[in-house]
Amino acid sequence: MSFVFSQTREFEAANEKYSVTFSKGDLALPPARKVVVVACMDARLDPAKALGLEEGDAHVIRNAGGRAVDAIRSLVISQQLLGTREIVLVHHTDCGMLTFSDDSLRQKIRTELGHDADHIAFLPFKDLKASVVDDIKVLQQHPLLLDVPITGYIYHVETGKITKVQ
Amino acid sequence: MSFVFSQTREFEAANEKYSVTFSKGDLALPPARKVVVVACMDARLDPAKALGLEEGDAHVIRNAGGRAVDAIRSLVISQQLLGTREIVLVHHTDCGMLTFSDDSLRQKIRTELGHDADHIAFLPFKDLKASVVDDIKVLQQHPLLLDVPITGYIYHVETGKITKVQ
Repeated sequence: MSFVFSQTREFEAANEKYSVTFSKGDLALPPARKVVVVACMDARLDPAKALGLEEGDAHVIRNAGGRAVDAIRSLVISQQLLGTREIVLVHHTDCGMLTFSDDSLRQKIRTELGHDADHIAFLPFKDLKASVVDDIKVLQQHPLLLDVPITGYIYHVETGKITKVQ
Repeated sequence: MSFVFSQTREFEAANEKYSVTFSKGDLALPPARKVVVVACMDARLDPAKALGLEEGDAHVIRNAGGRAVDAIRSLVISQQLLGTREIVLVHHTDCGMLTFSDDSLRQKIRTELGHDADHIAFLPFKDLKASVVDDIKVLQQHPLLLDVPITGYIYHVETGKITKVQ
């Protein structure tokens, strides 16, 4: 699909600049600050900038909504193999997950792609604060996760601020 | 667990600084560059810095290994509801996923946590380049994903450089 405009040339040019002044080639594999951040994939949220993370500091897991249940595989690896001992969860205002239901998305997929998506739980939510509280509970109660400090924030896309939920 | 040292005070202090000069409060929900990046959660990789992403530019999905099969839910949402039309995959050198097997991790969990993790595919890999090729194939062939440009890179944690695999 070479006729399609792609972002990759710009990514490669930006990476060229990044690598010219890169000075962090000797960082250890395990995160230095022993923390794993679980956040939404939203384009407006840059977890590193918003939380002050440098390369090497923290694992960052991101998915649609920053949903805990979709991060378990990665969290187990983070804790069991790479020594993180704290989880920070970040959901955010104006999240796309507030705008649809499993039923509406499945219907859209059926109409536009001609496929059935009944086997996928898309994990939308109706209440932002409740989504953080619910996800912390999922993490606290999961048998394959360690008993570590878990903090949940809402990131405000309008102001760049985080507010603590729990 | 208030007696445990936590990163959250530092995160909150860093966020305070970030939000003071924050000037991007009016960004649209859909990613401006219509691209979604799928990358590993590794602490040494900062996808925004390494690829030149600003707030609002791109969805960023991250999980252990940057595995495609674990990103399908988020990718469908990204394409169907938020209009992205390109996927960029980033795996990296010295990845933790090269260091274990499903069997070894399940055994560790059984011994240390006393639980069975046989129901989780942890998705480790033995060949870094092959993991990118395999994951591009997963994305290309998935019935719920659109036929969009997909590019796969290896990020070199030693140099900060990306090299294109396919």
